[in-house]
Amino acid sequence: MSTNSFGRLFSFTTWGESHGPAIGVTVDGCPPELPLDEAWLQHWLDRRRPGQNRFTTQRREPDSVEILSGVFEGSTTGAPIQLMIRNLDQRSKDYSDIKDRFRPGHADITYWRKYGIRDYRGGGRASARETASRVAVGGIARRVLESMAPGLRIQAYLIQIGALEIDRSRFNSGEIDGNPFWCPDAGAVEGWGEFLTQTRKSGDSIGAVVECIAEGVPAGLGAPVYAKLDADLAAAMMSINAVKAVEIGAGMSAATLTGSENADEIEFRQDNPRFLSNNSGGILGGISTGQDIILRFAVKPASSILNPRATITKSGEAVAVVTKGRHDPCVGIRAVPVAEAMMACVLADHLMLHRGQVGTNRGNIG
Amino acid sequence: MSTNSFGRLFSFTTWGESHGPAIGVTVDGCPPELPLDEAWLQHWLDRRRPGQNRFTTQRREPDSVEILSGVFEGSTTGAPIQLMIRNLDQRSKDYSDIKDRFRPGHADITYWRKYGIRDYRGGGRASARETASRVAVGGIARRVLESMAPGLRIQAYLIQIGALEIDRSRFNSGEIDGNPFWCPDAGAVEGWGEFLTQTRKSGDSIGAVVECIAEGVPAGLGAPVYAKLDADLAAAMMSINAVKAVEIGAGMSAATLTGSENADEIEFRQDNPRFLSNNSGGILGGISTGQDIILRFAVKPASSILNPRATITKSGEAVAVVTKGRHDPCVGIRAVPVAEAMMACVLADHLMLHRGQVGTNRGNIG
Amino acid sequence: MSTNSFGRLFSFTTWGESHGPAIGVTVDGCPPELPLDEAWLQHWLDRRRPGQNRFTTQRREPDSVEILSGVFEGSTTGAPIQLMIRNLDQRSKDYSDIKDRFRPGHADITYWRKYGIRDYRGGGRASARETASRVAVGGIARRVLESMAPGLRIQAYLIQIGALEIDRSRFNSGEIDGNPFWCPDAGAVEGWGEFLTQTRKSGDSIGAVVECIAEGVPAGLGAPVYAKLDADLAAAMMSINAVKAVEIGAGMSAATLTGSENADEIEFRQDNPRFLSNNSGGILGGISTGQDIILRFAVKPASSILNPRATITKSGEAVAVVTKGRHDPCVGIRAVPVAEAMMACVLADHLMLHRGQVGTNRGNIG
Amino acid sequence: MSTNSFGRLFSFTTWGESHGPAIGVTVDGCPPELPLDEAWLQHWLDRRRPGQNRFTTQRREPDSVEILSGVFEGSTTGAPIQLMIRNLDQRSKDYSDIKDRFRPGHADITYWRKYGIRDYRGGGRASARETASRVAVGGIARRVLESMAPGLRIQAYLIQIGALEIDRSRFNSGEIDGNPFWCPDAGAVEGWGEFLTQTRKSGDSIGAVVECIAEGVPAGLGAPVYAKLDADLAAAMMSINAVKAVEIGAGMSAATLTGSENADEIEFRQDNPRFLSNNSGGILGGISTGQDIILRFAVKPASSILNPRATITKSGEAVAVVTKGRHDPCVGIRAVPVAEAMMACVLADHLMLHRGQVGTNRGNIG
Repeated sequence: MSTNSFGRLFSFTTWGESHGPAIGVTVDGCPPELPLDEAWLQHWLDRRRPGQNRFTTQRREPDSVEILSGVFEGSTTGAPIQLMIRNLDQRSKDYSDIKDRFRPGHADITYWRKYGIRDYRGGGRASARETASRVAVGGIARRVLESMAPGLRIQAYLIQIGALEIDRSRFNSGEIDGNPFWCPDAGAVEGWGEFLTQTRKSGDSIGAVVECIAEGVPAGLGAPVYAKLDADLAAAMMSINAVKAVEIGAGMSAATLTGSENADEIEFRQDNPRFLSNNSGGILGGISTGQDIILRFAVKPASSILNPRATITKSGEAVAVVTKGRHDPCVGIRAVPVAEAMMACVLADHLMLHRGQVGTNRGNIG
Repeated sequence: MSTNSFGRLFSFTTWGESHGPAIGVTVDGCPPELPLDEAWLQHWLDRRRPGQNRFTTQRREPDSVEILSGVFEGSTTGAPIQLMIRNLDQRSKDYSDIKDRFRPGHADITYWRKYGIRDYRGGGRASARETASRVAVGGIARRVLESMAPGLRIQAYLIQIGALEIDRSRFNSGEIDGNPFWCPDAGAVEGWGEFLTQTRKSGDSIGAVVECIAEGVPAGLGAPVYAKLDADLAAAMMSINAVKAVEIGAGMSAATLTGSENADEIEFRQDNPRFLSNNSGGILGGISTGQDIILRFAVKPASSILNPRATITKSGEAVAVVTKGRHDPCVGIRAVPVAEAMMACVLADHLMLHRGQVGTNRGNIG
Repeated sequence: MSTNSFGRLFSFTTWGESHGPAIGVTVDGCPPELPLDEAWLQHWLDRRRPGQNRFTTQRREPDSVEILSGVFEGSTTGAPIQLMIRNLDQRSKDYSDIKDRFRPGHADITYWRKYGIRDYRGGGRASARETASRVAVGGIARRVLESMAPGLRIQAYLIQIGALEIDRSRFNSGEIDGNPFWCPDAGAVEGWGEFLTQTRKSGDSIGAVVECIAEGVPAGLGAPVYAKLDADLAAAMMSINAVKAVEIGAGMSAATLTGSENADEIEFRQDNPRFLSNNSGGILGGISTGQDIILRFAVKPASSILNPRATITKSGEAVAVVTKGRHDPCVGIRAVPVAEAMMACVLADHLMLHRGQVGTNRGNIG
Repeated sequence: MSTNSFGRLFSFTTWGESHGPAIGVTVDGCPPELPLDEAWLQHWLDRRRPGQNRFTTQRREPDSVEILSGVFEGSTTGAPIQLMIRNLDQRSKDYSDIKDRFRPGHADITYWRKYGIRDYRGGGRASARETASRVAVGGIARRVLESMAPGLRIQAYLIQIGALEIDRSRFNSGEIDGNPFWCPDAGAVEGWGEFLTQTRKSGDSIGAVVECIAEGVPAGLGAPVYAKLDADLAAAMMSINAVKAVEIGAGMSAATLTGSENADEIEFRQDNPRFLSNNSGGILGGISTGQDIILRFAVKPASSILNPRATITKSGEAVAVVTKGRHDPCVGIRAVPVAEAMMACVLADHLMLHRGQVGTNRGNIG
């Protein structure tokens, strides 16, 4: 019942602080005989790695992952897998200014009020650095998906920075990896770049919206009523730093639909049900339909900014706070690989959970 | 690890189908020596009860709850509490038409594909009838809250039906209980009534947005990283039938804020931190700030409608389906007491979890 | 994390007090499409039912079980299964004498000190009546076993009452159901009967040893390190009322063996490993070997006896206590079907857990 | 639901193989503001460390523990604590002989049949080396106990090696730390030494019995029905390598007691209940009585011996196996600090669980 754990059969526990010696993750329940090595995990970690362009934090971390257990001669063994990432580019003195004052919009004050103690260096446990561990375990989850649902493919991307949305008519998934914003709309990239540069120069930060889809998800994943696939995905995404909202399928706009509009009609095509629309986002009653799973979430702007904000100290004194250090002008960007990782973990877990309870797919149609 | 369970220390498992003999909930971990009787639970159940006006299903269920265990001489004992609600007004024959055909927008098809069997009568386990159990356990959770956080107060209400939103300038919490829509804006009620009447007459249904706030929540509740208070609330609300999106605080609109705008500045007033705004929705880093917790969720329109929709049968045949029976034109209305119940359960659980790990509030300021 | 729950994938939560309106169990995670009806469960409940002969309590309970959910047209649906057994033959006034005094050897005093309140009627939640729910859920677990490990067979029996042990050379499993003691040694039955009659007449009670074996268990069940099959079995058996010790295989006597004696040598016979002895009790490193699983546990004598014992009241006054009412002179007898049920639950859970993580048996030999 | 995790609120997950780069443990739920550093943990680890005398394995491991997270400026923070112990003295080539053959009495064959793959070097995950992690986390649990139950004291010792039992009349707890066997009977030490020397020279190993007591345990710990304190202790001890039986209080001999003999009579002395005997081992109905908790467990002889035993290979071939390498002639000796650690973890967890549900002790007497 660890509160730093996620997942039921494919479960993991992250540990570590932003400026401690290391961060990492303990993964348990992974099936045996899956291929796994550090190079594979590094591939995914490199996508989240900070300092790669001027739109993310300038902290320089190689994020080199070590596999300490659970893998033998290149294969998982079914035993717990320990992944460790050393912290190398800490600059803890950057944080001495905020040792006793609470950054507005930051977990500083709540950790203090909960625990009476906190590792204030770089956000400690509340730092987005924790998400590197998620990306690493996501790499393991992808091995599970390859083995259990070979055609499954996950992709996340940014659809909005501040008020700047993509133009859906120009959506091209081939563009996503080709720009620093994971933006699927080539026409939006330049504008986003200018806007972010301006935001950074003004000492400020900005929010964003991430969308994540999973294609090729088998029908029948999810476990009513409280382990619904969408409930687990909502928890998974809301647990990412700075996320304030999660939408599945039609999301908030489902409120404005009529039942006739919302109901995704069904036909039978090539021996399979085919839905004529996807307002459900691929999930009905908490269980996957076999359509694409589609979700979106909003990421608030980082609270570590150079503009002074009014706050108080531990002793209740009124002060202003400015956060020096190296911060992301738009943390939403680095949330993209994290979203993919969490999607992979939730789906791997539900594939295993389904296999445990039900065994194999049933309820074929036709 | 039951998938029909929710909660860590204050945990419950719901059971039962819409048209089976009964539904209910097994509650475990409740503190001893809290006052509890059936009248108290009935009070909350009556708020969700169907058939009370023409805007909800005409199924007539008294929803009388029986306490079968865990209470002795009017007090909880610390042992599991079993609550049972008999189903009395089933009309299973209403459902013979949909025995072999899948309603678009409904869990019919996903239950079939997952399990290869389903109790099709009235939606079986996927029916919103399950939420009566949530409201009942919410009544117990309120006893925990009274005992552990006496000033805490929870209220939910509708802020939108279809495209019709309330006017926030007319917000009056005193209005909420006085109309069939839990609407805090007296000026919106008539319009909503006409719109819903029209929706119902046209054989259709409509979505809605519920808002839920909790006042008087102590600072320090929530447990990073995967048991964040907002992650648990997101899962709790997303697990309610027909919910497609959950927002905390600024929600989706956080994407458009700058860091300067978003950061809720802090002052020290009357021996306590006081925030100058509440974009965070009362939660920072997954832990409560002491401000009001504010969340919203979108409820899609019910999929059981009279307008024919294209679908298929179990054998893959193309057919049209119409759902007779007694249905809610706007299931969002009855989601309001369910939202309050789930909020109460999450907060009770986190109060106990905090007490278990940390003992008492610490980290005072000033 | 309910403390009244057991199991991981095949999980259940028992509820109810000895003299409340009903007891029962909520079972979650059961695979769909297994045959299940009340007659099947009743068969197993009847084996544990009190009042069947003069060696068990004279409380007359039909122990009729009702299935309230999770079964449709004779098959499990994958949804939670609620089983309820009404209490009919309560005689709560029998217990007014012990309302304020603590029976030595009984949970009276510990429930009081933990919760500050207890349902003293008939032992409340601490009563052996709770084990009826275990036997009922064991009936469901057997359906899982039939489906997933068809040749698996479980049998428990008494091997000792007080100092009277069976003669292993006369062991005949065919005798077990033919006498009131589940005794596999026909030659021991008469002596046990005389001894128990004498014990009952003297107003006393006596301990016993139960042995339980499972044949046809597939190799590979169990999950190191903390979900070892033997660790789960030890917890399962120790959680039964009055159990004070659990042994697997050689048990306590393993202490006196040398490594040469203890190591069960292996040969390859008929395409399978065959062990030349079974000191391990069918479990090595927490995982089943494919041999018979063998365990034993000691049941202490019931603490409800007619002989006066020195004790105190809630107010600390020294008194003597005598427990009238209808009690078992040897509760070990009725623990036999409970042992079988718990064994069935543990094995069903581990079969599902193995299927979830590993999929199918691997690691064949030869 | 990690199968390599233990505990509810104070929970931990161990990881690592005997001959991998490191082993360790992820501890979650620890209360904040407890003093913790590596020296404190090392103290406990040194008690279990191999190679300290000729009666344990000659593997030379410093067992130096690193704290990688969850501690800041010498105090726990409430965040996950990661402890890592590097493996330094692996001699993996010792194990090439057993790569394809299964040691009788060892988990070799069951890991193979479960997973189809295993790290055969030094027992991999099944090695007793895993218990170093338990001892480390036990050091943290002791900090919890100091804080929540200051007078609580835990001590384990050997009471039997092979057939050689201690003489209870010579029991002296002051002797335990003064000999290589944790033996409380000075008169037994020489005989044990001679016997073990002989056992080792004959290439064999021998079993043992460990007893563990906890004094000063508050009344009221434990959570019926499936989280009984004795059920959790049974699982905790049975999960230790090579343990085959667990007894609480009178244990197996409870079978031979009458109810009159077994019932620990109660008097009221110095404002507290006082029991005149302790057949219960300090636990009634799964809840602590306030008496000493007493348990015993049997440790089988190590299966890694020099005497050849008949076995088979992966391909089913009949062979003999001899285990070279550096092994314990009596693994029971090193189980002593492990027993203490597991006792500490169970009690810390139940103290927190009790505080979470019930808050403070209640149900005072007198």
